[in-house]
Amino acid sequence: MKVLVANLGSTSFKYRLFDMADERQLARGGVERIGSAESPCFVEIQGRRQELKAPVPDHAVAVRQCLAQLTDPQQGCLQSEKEVAAIGFKAVHGGRVSGVQRVTPDVLAAMEEMNLIAPAHNPPYIRAMRLLGEKLPEIPLVAAFETGFHNTIADRLRHYPVPHEWADRLHIKRWGFHGASHSYIAQRTSQLLGRYDLRIISCHLGGSNSLCAIRGQQSVATTMGMSPQTGLPHNNRVGDFDPFAIPLIMQSEGKSLHEVLDTLAEKSGLLGLSGISGDVRDLEEAAAQGNGRARLALDVFVAEIRRHLGGMLIELGGADAIVFTGGIGENGANIRAGVCADLQGLGIELDSNLNATKGSAERCLSTPASKTQIWVIPTNEELIVARQTKHVLENRFEG
Amino acid sequence: MKVLVANLGSTSFKYRLFDMADERQLARGGVERIGSAESPCFVEIQGRRQELKAPVPDHAVAVRQCLAQLTDPQQGCLQSEKEVAAIGFKAVHGGRVSGVQRVTPDVLAAMEEMNLIAPAHNPPYIRAMRLLGEKLPEIPLVAAFETGFHNTIADRLRHYPVPHEWADRLHIKRWGFHGASHSYIAQRTSQLLGRYDLRIISCHLGGSNSLCAIRGQQSVATTMGMSPQTGLPHNNRVGDFDPFAIPLIMQSEGKSLHEVLDTLAEKSGLLGLSGISGDVRDLEEAAAQGNGRARLALDVFVAEIRRHLGGMLIELGGADAIVFTGGIGENGANIRAGVCADLQGLGIELDSNLNATKGSAERCLSTPASKTQIWVIPTNEELIVARQTKHVLENRFEG
Repeated sequence: MKVLVANLGSTSFKYRLFDMADERQLARGGVERIGSAESPCFVEIQGRRQELKAPVPDHAVAVRQCLAQLTDPQQGCLQSEKEVAAIGFKAVHGGRVSGVQRVTPDVLAAMEEMNLIAPAHNPPYIRAMRLLGEKLPEIPLVAAFETGFHNTIADRLRHYPVPHEWADRLHIKRWGFHGASHSYIAQRTSQLLGRYDLRIISCHLGGSNSLCAIRGQQSVATTMGMSPQTGLPHNNRVGDFDPFAIPLIMQSEGKSLHEVLDTLAEKSGLLGLSGISGDVRDLEEAAAQGNGRARLALDVFVAEIRRHLGGMLIELGGADAIVFTGGIGENGANIRAGVCADLQGLGIELDSNLNATKGSAERCLSTPASKTQIWVIPTNEELIVARQTKHVLENRFEG
Repeated sequence: MKVLVANLGSTSFKYRLFDMADERQLARGGVERIGSAESPCFVEIQGRRQELKAPVPDHAVAVRQCLAQLTDPQQGCLQSEKEVAAIGFKAVHGGRVSGVQRVTPDVLAAMEEMNLIAPAHNPPYIRAMRLLGEKLPEIPLVAAFETGFHNTIADRLRHYPVPHEWADRLHIKRWGFHGASHSYIAQRTSQLLGRYDLRIISCHLGGSNSLCAIRGQQSVATTMGMSPQTGLPHNNRVGDFDPFAIPLIMQSEGKSLHEVLDTLAEKSGLLGLSGISGDVRDLEEAAAQGNGRARLALDVFVAEIRRHLGGMLIELGGADAIVFTGGIGENGANIRAGVCADLQGLGIELDSNLNATKGSAERCLSTPASKTQIWVIPTNEELIVARQTKHVLENRFEG
């Protein structure tokens, strides 16, 4: 079975194609600047990259274009489009609908109900999935919700201290996101350490950020809550914030509620604090040149990671492994050093030489004396979505 | 020097009177149902309680009435009203004004700017302090802000990840509250353990709740942020919450922003979750009788305390002492047991027999093996305010 895993932007479609017989990635590719007269379309098969430009008016044409490249008699890797058993999507927020689902009108309606909660994420996915359902009805679509991995979180960590009806009727709970990434880290760390009962703190640090406490490969706590704007500071999204500050901001700045929330969703996080960039690399460069706000943004970021890490350490009663993943988690040696600083008393000790090594290899960074192992493990969210998509299809075929 | 420390409600005035020569409490008393035809006025001096009823139209008359009782030739403890050097107030939020301050028009204006942030706390204090300033100009008034003890918190833990201008212009930062209580715990724990460099986690648990991480008697982190509605769940106030859920609640429930915030400030917390009460004793009774929502409210409360406790443990790199105070902290054995459960791996071990002891005595509850000592220490916020008031007066007299 071959599964295509899609990553959608409002004007982009990127994918990876997996052969689920051996979970090998057969190809990756995509289309950018959808809607323009000359959209770049690329495919990479066994290291060979082909690129062409074509008018691609919408996401359905983008998928057609990608399938054409994949089935090209000379350079493709598929005999026929029919080999693609399904397209799997890493969908963000379905509220009342979570887990892995065939895309149906009800699934799309549930996602629409959460548009206010995930304004940057849900609308482009809904639009593209609806279009593909209409234009390519022969290809099954599967939504693997980012919230799904967190279904195992206990009610005591899921409920906000608000009227119970809001949880029951409006689904206002700590849903959590980055499920595919944390799920991959849970599985891969267990393989690497040869134990499946591990207590793991998975630190997904990139453009958006979350931690996940994992026990026995299941999520027991995570930092994001009802919306993907919560928890740790993100590149341009706020993280945890006090709702009672909002009326003061509205009054003082002459802004509407939605304008304030837009600022919190687009101009806050590391970008807001620093005033210059949401990218950790830019901030490290600026801080090295004496920019105080860039230094503060980095310091707040590390402090917030540590604050949440501590909560998870208590929840798990200690950790067997702390795993860093995502662009910053894999490459941000200074961030990792900051997060792990001065924790010898709690049995957590980073080896500064190992931490300085670069590259994309899976590697252990802790000292032999550290009770908690510290790892870098590159994530593979697409593989998780491909597995989940396969699982849904097989259930259907069985049923 | 004798200092009267006031505790104001919108229709009540309570006080304690201290002789600062030896910090002895000379009397306590107060007036309730201010504005009614028959306001109960009571005073307790050396264990003897006197009570009378009188028409007390406002807080200024209430103070006059209390002073009359204190200077009663037969039963009073003061020769003259002039012995009262000042009235000290535990003021909540002054935003740009913090620390300990003589009450001036500017101090009252600064508090008014924060009315939206502390709607339950600031307005009655401003009203009463303004009235007393007019009607009793001979008595100096001193505001000891709850935020003051947290002035030592580092910027990395003080700043939200929002545009820097909001912190600069609108004072939107993690201010923290319960300063007098945490300050008392810092001082008293150091005395009891005979060390002044201790790492302490002070857990003030009562009607409203906060933790404070203390190093060398200084606050280094606390759970409340910009407003006193944040951090841990409170009896009827929400604690940490996701601002992005607000538009969904407004839309679904047909409510305005202020109605939603009112619900978060008055009908949330333990009350909102349980639907029956914000009082831990009521909830424990209901949970014992099988009420699932009461059980959930207690479980969420403990889980949130543990989550924040963990962050502080990381910040301090371990703790020498965890101290419980406030009504729940001192009397809530089940809550304490829940907070400390399964933390042996982190060197924190409660002795369940010691934890079951009742009473108001200062006492250590941890096992001899526990690396972190666990204590109950009744707080004395009024003594801290009295000391701070004395300090301000002395500075004035010196200057």
